[in-house]
Amino acid sequence: MALLLPPLHLSTSYLSTSTIVALCVFFTLLGTCVIIGHLLEENRWANESIIALLLGLCAGTVVLFVTNFKSAKILIFSEDLFFLYLLPPIIFNAGFQVKKKQFFKNFTIILLFGVIGTVISFCLISVGALILIQWIGIANLGLKDYLAIGAILSATDSVCTLQVLNQDETPLLYSIVFGEGVVNDATSIVLFNSVQSLDFSSSNSVTALKLLGTFLYLFCTSTALGIAVGLLSAYIMKNLYLGRHSTDRELALMMLLAYLSYMIAELLSLSGILTIFFCGIVMSHYTWHNVTLSSRTTTKHAFATLSFIAETFIFICVGMDALDIDKWKNSKGSAGISVAVSSTLFALVLIGRAAFVFPIAYIKNRINTRENTRLEFRSQFAEAKSTSSTQDSALMITSSIIVVLFSTVVFGSITKPLIEAVQPRHPKPTSFDSTDNVEDLRFLLLENNGPINQSNNMQIQRQSRIRMLISHPSKTVHYFWRKFDDKFMRPVFGGRGFVPFVPGEAA
Amino acid sequence: MALLLPPLHLSTSYLSTSTIVALCVFFTLLGTCVIIGHLLEENRWANESIIALLLGLCAGTVVLFVTNFKSAKILIFSEDLFFLYLLPPIIFNAGFQVKKKQFFKNFTIILLFGVIGTVISFCLISVGALILIQWIGIANLGLKDYLAIGAILSATDSVCTLQVLNQDETPLLYSIVFGEGVVNDATSIVLFNSVQSLDFSSSNSVTALKLLGTFLYLFCTSTALGIAVGLLSAYIMKNLYLGRHSTDRELALMMLLAYLSYMIAELLSLSGILTIFFCGIVMSHYTWHNVTLSSRTTTKHAFATLSFIAETFIFICVGMDALDIDKWKNSKGSAGISVAVSSTLFALVLIGRAAFVFPIAYIKNRINTRENTRLEFRSQFAEAKSTSSTQDSALMITSSIIVVLFSTVVFGSITKPLIEAVQPRHPKPTSFDSTDNVEDLRFLLLENNGPINQSNNMQIQRQSRIRMLISHPSKTVHYFWRKFDDKFMRPVFGGRGFVPFVPGEAA
Repeated sequence: MALLLPPLHLSTSYLSTSTIVALCVFFTLLGTCVIIGHLLEENRWANESIIALLLGLCAGTVVLFVTNFKSAKILIFSEDLFFLYLLPPIIFNAGFQVKKKQFFKNFTIILLFGVIGTVISFCLISVGALILIQWIGIANLGLKDYLAIGAILSATDSVCTLQVLNQDETPLLYSIVFGEGVVNDATSIVLFNSVQSLDFSSSNSVTALKLLGTFLYLFCTSTALGIAVGLLSAYIMKNLYLGRHSTDRELALMMLLAYLSYMIAELLSLSGILTIFFCGIVMSHYTWHNVTLSSRTTTKHAFATLSFIAETFIFICVGMDALDIDKWKNSKGSAGISVAVSSTLFALVLIGRAAFVFPIAYIKNRINTRENTRLEFRSQFAEAKSTSSTQDSALMITSSIIVVLFSTVVFGSITKPLIEAVQPRHPKPTSFDSTDNVEDLRFLLLENNGPINQSNNMQIQRQSRIRMLISHPSKTVHYFWRKFDDKFMRPVFGGRGFVPFVPGEAA
Repeated sequence: MALLLPPLHLSTSYLSTSTIVALCVFFTLLGTCVIIGHLLEENRWANESIIALLLGLCAGTVVLFVTNFKSAKILIFSEDLFFLYLLPPIIFNAGFQVKKKQFFKNFTIILLFGVIGTVISFCLISVGALILIQWIGIANLGLKDYLAIGAILSATDSVCTLQVLNQDETPLLYSIVFGEGVVNDATSIVLFNSVQSLDFSSSNSVTALKLLGTFLYLFCTSTALGIAVGLLSAYIMKNLYLGRHSTDRELALMMLLAYLSYMIAELLSLSGILTIFFCGIVMSHYTWHNVTLSSRTTTKHAFATLSFIAETFIFICVGMDALDIDKWKNSKGSAGISVAVSSTLFALVLIGRAAFVFPIAYIKNRINTRENTRLEFRSQFAEAKSTSSTQDSALMITSSIIVVLFSTVVFGSITKPLIEAVQPRHPKPTSFDSTDNVEDLRFLLLENNGPINQSNNMQIQRQSRIRMLISHPSKTVHYFWRKFDDKFMRPVFGGRGFVPFVPGEAA
């Protein structure tokens, strides 16, 4: 719709050639990834993350040869790029597409895994690293460095696992792994920041209380901000009905507000991840139902695609980053020590995960989520900052990369077959959320009883509610939430509410 | 779908607070713009560009007061940002949504306006500026500077006009204004680059020939590249059918390939604008019909929305940039001289436009496009580069900003009422392209004649074709292009071809 003169367009004076080359290479790699991912869709050992990682490694090797072993980097994968442009669409889409009912049904176990589990993991890894790495012969790191390592490596990344898991086939496993990731993330942030500003002279109990307070404050304010922005968008869509003139405005406003919620959270030093995640949930519950039909289709697919591109991009970057010569040069330690440290860290991470996943899973007596252990691939960047800048820290960075690559490729490959072996596949539900529908209908029947048999029905209803409260407390919470939603929220913010899903309502 | 640990997330060490503040402000402004634009939709004097520009001015004023008159800039509107992220989606969407038939039907007049018109305008503005500005009393500029001014100001920006024009209501005017902008753009690039590397010692006729050769080379290679990438995408979509597994891959690949075409063109020093424009045309003709239904809806709306956001963003930036104190400080000239230079340039631009629009329009005896004069709002950046860095050049920059602001606000406001006054509104077509359908049906009837009356029909057909070739040469070209498309292109690259539009085929 626009034609602007770019008068310096031909000359390369305004755009550096290196930027253009880097973008060309990255977009080619992304495109290749998409196509290979499509061709290998049926392959049970491969997934898009692994393909992207391997492609990144290959490209890195080529660049290494072309630049005469100077550097494998053609684009600086800065923190700005990651936190401003790649992370928000991924997390927002996660909130937007998550099955809300499954997620909130398992909220208790998610919090258990997320908070307590991360703390257990953090303690184990820190102490283990302190003992074992000093035993290997590296003494330059302080107590704070070990605690930082613990905080970083106790965070998990669920990208790779969630690519393998299917929300329709294993809904419980999916929502736990996924929700744990969000909470775990917030916990790690609190732990890391606390470690950075920790005063070891004060007593431990006060510190622990402070940590708990910070976590609760962070969790509540971030969530509230996300919900507030989501409700604002729903209110605007319902009352202004932007789609009357142009569907583009609806789309634009949804994107802008989602992004704004993340930015405001960052500005207020909250957890942008939690905020944009809950903003996505509220938007899919209210806002999405207030927009035009074509906007619904568009948002659903456009957000998923943006998230998909961002994820693939990150994995390609990690693959290329692994070959960064400078990093390896700085770590002067011998190959033996490097491997020793890598395997130590790796073992610690596995033990840290197992130490809380199995007991909690046993308590909940539900499902085995051991396979959800995916290492955070951002750890190398983080570690670069957290550990003091000695040669030993360079060693830690290279070790982290080994851990990340190994875990992504090896575990990524075995996850799908293992899940298939452990848990027989459910037959794929034909409808969008057919299991929900049954329950929705039951609730509807309970609520919308006609004038006939009303008194009799009321009696049954009351009985059933009391019985339910005893047998299924979470379902009762859900029931009251529905009541509240119908009475107070929906008249103001719109949304579909809890009527059964009508097939063909939106593509 | 992803949860990554950002361990340094809370601390502001990795993201500068200024970046976050700037992004917050910009996203708030964009959101406000969208809402105000919706509320003022029925208003005939306002449009989104003007609103964005005025909002930018307001925000700039506020920032100016907050920063104690140091700077009104909170985000550096770099050339990278513009050429890498804002321009490609705008131009791609233009190609993707343009009515191809109208565009190619008027290709001759578009080329006339675009090439000859720009050259006339260039000569007039350069000579006029040379005479008048020296007369005002500024003597520091060389001949090259005046030629550069001519090249820059002979380019028009159609963003504002096209926001007011309606593709359905005034299809001819729209396609001419639009197409002229694309060609005009390429011509300006060639002129500007030629001016920069011009050797004034050689004879004029050789230079002119060289210019013509460069233009033809640029035009043909850029177009060919865009078509090639577009066809590649169509071929991939048709043969791999990515939508079988995931619609996200289709979307991702279309976006990636479109962007890649622009980047490759930049890499080869071609006109990225022409390339991505033709890539968009080919994609909407072939690729779009090879993807799933939901991908069609999504691409259509998502591309339009991205383009819309980019446009609004640019106008806000221009509004804020106008208050940049440093620029005004550097131009030490008195207010009188500044106004004099501004009005001189402004008058020259109007004369330059009128000098070719009216004669060519008279020759074509079709329609008055005088109102299409929109000044290129990028000119201030361009000029900052092109003119030598003296105080006089600062004066030229500030003068350009005045010209840009004045023309956007004043002309933007009067365009809509003026078009309504000059040309009575057509009743809005009910179908997507109902006028095309009639013709499509006629062609279908001519081609797909049944076995009955075949020989008789053939006779009529042959007669009608010869008659058509004489009366409507462009229609005959179109007829043969259809034949070629059906026989050779569609079997390989897919696409809907020229069958009538089925309502409800895609939302």
